[in-house]
Amino acid sequence: MSERTAASVVNSELRSALTNLVGEKGCLFDPQDTAAYCEDWRQLYQGQTPAVVRPASAAEVASIVRICAERRIAIVPQGGNTGMMGGATPSAEGSQIVLSLSRMNKIRELDVVDLTMTLDAGVALKTAQEAAAAENCTLPLSMGSEGTAQIGGVISTNAGGNNTVRYGNAREMVLGLEVVLPDGRIWNGLRRLRKDNTGYCLRQLFVGAEGTLGIVTAAVLKLVPRPHDVALAFCSVPSAQAALDLFVLCRRYHPGSIQAFEYMCGEIVDLVFKHFPDTRSPLSQRADHYVLVELADASPDAGLREKLEDVLGKAMDSGVVLDAALAGSSAERLALWQLRENFSEAQKREAAIIKNDVSVPVSKTPAFIAQATQACARKFPDIRIMAYGHLGDGNIHFHLFPAVGAGNAEFLKLDHAIMDTVNEVVRRFDGSFSAEHGVGQLKAYMMEKWRGGVELDTMRRIKTALDTMGIMNPGKVLP
Amino acid sequence: MSERTAASVVNSELRSALTNLVGEKGCLFDPQDTAAYCEDWRQLYQGQTPAVVRPASAAEVASIVRICAERRIAIVPQGGNTGMMGGATPSAEGSQIVLSLSRMNKIRELDVVDLTMTLDAGVALKTAQEAAAAENCTLPLSMGSEGTAQIGGVISTNAGGNNTVRYGNAREMVLGLEVVLPDGRIWNGLRRLRKDNTGYCLRQLFVGAEGTLGIVTAAVLKLVPRPHDVALAFCSVPSAQAALDLFVLCRRYHPGSIQAFEYMCGEIVDLVFKHFPDTRSPLSQRADHYVLVELADASPDAGLREKLEDVLGKAMDSGVVLDAALAGSSAERLALWQLRENFSEAQKREAAIIKNDVSVPVSKTPAFIAQATQACARKFPDIRIMAYGHLGDGNIHFHLFPAVGAGNAEFLKLDHAIMDTVNEVVRRFDGSFSAEHGVGQLKAYMMEKWRGGVELDTMRRIKTALDTMGIMNPGKVLP
Repeated sequence: MSERTAASVVNSELRSALTNLVGEKGCLFDPQDTAAYCEDWRQLYQGQTPAVVRPASAAEVASIVRICAERRIAIVPQGGNTGMMGGATPSAEGSQIVLSLSRMNKIRELDVVDLTMTLDAGVALKTAQEAAAAENCTLPLSMGSEGTAQIGGVISTNAGGNNTVRYGNAREMVLGLEVVLPDGRIWNGLRRLRKDNTGYCLRQLFVGAEGTLGIVTAAVLKLVPRPHDVALAFCSVPSAQAALDLFVLCRRYHPGSIQAFEYMCGEIVDLVFKHFPDTRSPLSQRADHYVLVELADASPDAGLREKLEDVLGKAMDSGVVLDAALAGSSAERLALWQLRENFSEAQKREAAIIKNDVSVPVSKTPAFIAQATQACARKFPDIRIMAYGHLGDGNIHFHLFPAVGAGNAEFLKLDHAIMDTVNEVVRRFDGSFSAEHGVGQLKAYMMEKWRGGVELDTMRRIKTALDTMGIMNPGKVLP
Repeated sequence: MSERTAASVVNSELRSALTNLVGEKGCLFDPQDTAAYCEDWRQLYQGQTPAVVRPASAAEVASIVRICAERRIAIVPQGGNTGMMGGATPSAEGSQIVLSLSRMNKIRELDVVDLTMTLDAGVALKTAQEAAAAENCTLPLSMGSEGTAQIGGVISTNAGGNNTVRYGNAREMVLGLEVVLPDGRIWNGLRRLRKDNTGYCLRQLFVGAEGTLGIVTAAVLKLVPRPHDVALAFCSVPSAQAALDLFVLCRRYHPGSIQAFEYMCGEIVDLVFKHFPDTRSPLSQRADHYVLVELADASPDAGLREKLEDVLGKAMDSGVVLDAALAGSSAERLALWQLRENFSEAQKREAAIIKNDVSVPVSKTPAFIAQATQACARKFPDIRIMAYGHLGDGNIHFHLFPAVGAGNAEFLKLDHAIMDTVNEVVRRFDGSFSAEHGVGQLKAYMMEKWRGGVELDTMRRIKTALDTMGIMNPGKVLP
């Protein structure tokens, strides 16, 4: 495939076939129009494509896939293009077609008794959240990119986010899927069932497969009753170990109510104050470690504020918490979450970043942070290290930055060396080199070392069995 | 394979290979010793096997699989042999070896901070529950067969049970697996991570595959904090629709606390009184419909009894509940659960049964029961119908019995006709012909009609890709 050029792939015959199928406005051929689809959000990858096709239905997706399969043209499915791993970006040599799901953006059904929602892959996550909220339900998937990220991408990357500690990843929300397979057939698995033991669980195979086994065109998601009582606290703690102790303490008293438990090092919070100068700290003193903990309950009189105050009081008595501020209004609550959501943008404004989205067993989180910091500081003495993340899931974003004033370009050359150094520590704890961001292009090279042998071989057998011609998002996930 | 006899499959060379591997006590060749492994719990299938092999480690399982793969001998993995679908019973022609996991019964690790438990496939579910309880944790998988059912079988059939409404099926509990693949390689996927997005989710492929893709030898399961406040009520309600209304009402006020929500028709409760004459009804009047609802919370002062009384009071005011009795002690609570757990045995004592373990969207449960009852009563005028099950999951056990005094044998000839009649009603609601019991041998014939076309073809491709020689539990799941 590597010697095929855009012109040789998308000749006039193919152009008219695609245009006939999805109409003029469904096809983009001009490099100026396709450029936005060829770069990832982090601007790590600059691809090239002969065509962006934007179908309006699963039947159109199926036809496009058949057209491409006949010609052995590779397809890169793309949703909101907010992925962290370059999983939705076409390759640089310019022969891969981008298939955008954006025009498939209807919410098909929402049932408040069944607590299910059936929706197209191209619905933005925030739109889906709002539709659920309008019916007094919650779609408990929440992340910084939710305004742009689309359901198809959220499912295909098994996205995590802030509420995984309570509700699990996207995987746990998926009851049913509609998928266009690599040969252009449509699998209608849009069942709205809580229980269904009839053969292999295909839907879980497509969740997290990053479009390499087929294209998710619609889904049935579980909803939960909307919480009517929420309590949020921002706490300073003496160490990452204390953050873990606080998590265990909260879980002892209110395991069913913890809806978010975020750890953050002092430096990353400083960065938000620096780049978003309007941000106010709710605490009087700076600290090296913070926790954002949120409890929620469907009942409006659950008394969560008092319960959270009570647990934090116990934690302060035993030295686990240094200081704490509870959100007193929903405006204060939103402001605290905004502080957290601004992490990504603040880092982007600060410098180049080498990101490690890793996980270890929850109990090992403090030890991981300590050992990974030590290992990186020893090998790369001038870099800056910031750790934060979903501690309740054992999921740490361990990020590295060049020294203040140092150049980005030189630093970025260290990416594999740094990621590999962090991963060696992850390995000590039987952790994962990708907790919630997936593999995409960026981490595909790690698969051989980390999931090689039996596991990778089994994945490849499945890939070959389903995508016999290798046209579905090649170069992603599997090395 | 069908013409191979026991003698031709297990010749003296193979006997010594197996005996050398697992020792004398690990091998059973005598038909008297193997008989118990050849019949399913419901006594629907009478198989035959030349050998039952009982390895003591994953390495031994792997060696046995390699030995069988070389000779193309089929293997039937078996746990506690409590399955409902004949999925663990060898075929009648006597060429399939039974591989029993019973000797692999160690709990390898339990971590109270991570809330994870790593254990061998042959550990009985009840043993695992007790080990969790000893550490103040709960393994929230519970079913009538738990004393005998083993973890490997629970996972391989994606078992459900009484607490699915809150915690999900076995699938939702599985964080990691160790699996011996059909070529004898061991996949070590025993990760204890809450988040891990590194390629295809293989573990979910083996969950519910009923041993047709490999043999689960160990697992990492999620635990939850042990509840310290539990409230249970046994209610009479005017209809199945009222049972659903009560579920919605309980969920409105206490969605996070509902731990079981069981519907039961009057006839099935009568059957327990008949066959277990010591059973006392907690209500003064017989009813046509009952509900068993249980709330639970980790906090000892959650006040669930008052909360449940309050909700039931509201329900009685609006006519949704006729009468209710709350368990006043843990002895009373156990007695009420015993009543429920005796359903299976009471039915067995009553007569032959044709069981339909089906699911529909939760909101359709009353309509399904009404229409399925009507359809069966019309076609089979003399049979008796009893419906009960996990209404909170949309999972109904729709069971049929011969008329009082009628013979079992004639009745059982109707099995396909009755199951197909029920399934036609299930289809109206886009339901499933097997909610929690799986497919096994009994329902394999339904797969073509229900999951045929794209879905079954995709399953077959996966089967062929992993089990190239078709030696893993052939004849089960896939027709």
